[in-house]
Amino acid sequence: MDIFLALVHHPVLNRRGDVVTTAVTNLDVHDFARISRTYDCAGTFIVTPIDEQLALVGRIVGHWAPAGVADGLSTNPSRSEAFSRVKPIRSIEAVCEDIKERTGSRPYIIGTSARPEHTNERHFVLSYDDARVKLAEPGGAVLILFGTGWGLTKEALDLAEAMLPPIDAIPSRAGYNHLPVRAACAIILDRVCGAR
Amino acid sequence: MDIFLALVHHPVLNRRGDVVTTAVTNLDVHDFARISRTYDCAGTFIVTPIDEQLALVGRIVGHWAPAGVADGLSTNPSRSEAFSRVKPIRSIEAVCEDIKERTGSRPYIIGTSARPEHTNERHFVLSYDDARVKLAEPGGAVLILFGTGWGLTKEALDLAEAMLPPIDAIPSRAGYNHLPVRAACAIILDRVCGAR
Repeated sequence: MDIFLALVHHPVLNRRGDVVTTAVTNLDVHDFARISRTYDCAGTFIVTPIDEQLALVGRIVGHWAPAGVADGLSTNPSRSEAFSRVKPIRSIEAVCEDIKERTGSRPYIIGTSARPEHTNERHFVLSYDDARVKLAEPGGAVLILFGTGWGLTKEALDLAEAMLPPIDAIPSRAGYNHLPVRAACAIILDRVCGAR
Repeated sequence: MDIFLALVHHPVLNRRGDVVTTAVTNLDVHDFARISRTYDCAGTFIVTPIDEQLALVGRIVGHWAPAGVADGLSTNPSRSEAFSRVKPIRSIEAVCEDIKERTGSRPYIIGTSARPEHTNERHFVLSYDDARVKLAEPGGAVLILFGTGWGLTKEALDLAEAMLPPIDAIPSRAGYNHLPVRAACAIILDRVCGAR
């Protein structure tokens, strides 16, 4: 399947549980570009409704991507290649429309969360092993949602057909999970399509 | 086993293959702290011989760690907990001495590299499955080395008793690997002590 990622800056929660829009960080864009390219994702969407932030992502991508042929391409061609698959976009719905235009159908949406209570509620929980099998199927597209801040809102998670379980260490080492979203992205992609 | 990590800024290579000292980045320190804490590593060393950089890491850690009881502790206790296990230090040799003081013996050193030619030369190659078994043994300490820049020098890799293979995607998705070192750290720890 074609794998698409969305790094969502709205709608997400802040530490008090309010629905907010987080700021795009240059670093998340860089890391998502390189991590998603390593696992051959078809596209990575940086989701924010704020015009200035969309323009910021456009400038970062333009600096590195081949279409820009700016400084970034000559100094670091592998990074250029990673950025060529990154796109700033206004909403999760716009991501689904974009994928439909590219692939002919809306994606199967998979949600992620660090909180066990999010994955025990209404959703079908897809184990990492089952996700690995599903993503290896020929044809079709899947969209994996990653929340910034304190995670995706209930509204955003309700768009997902399935949820992946929170990342955890083996029981003897478990109990703390405050991973950066870029680390969660790396681990999840490796669990579902890393070489073993 | 107790797991220790070293994020090495010297001796490493630059893109031309020269031996250099890279700059410490605030972000790598943050991500290594949070990722290593999630997998219950006993300590994370930020290795640089440069006084100003050692002081910089000390300030970052002091801001967040409990001993500092500065702004960071009250606003984000989980981040404080992560930083309490981070230590700036001058060399890989000093890391080994520090671990010996804490645990009574020098650590078993495992090297990492994104380049297959580094792991096919002189070293014993430890598969991720075998590393998983080894790290689950009771007692003892292991030190995993991560290089910044274009990777650890031959001299640094020669300190390792074993090498982990480069991270890769499944064959159908493989061919590009320019992961940030913080992403490599997340993936490697998850492979050797993530819940399955």
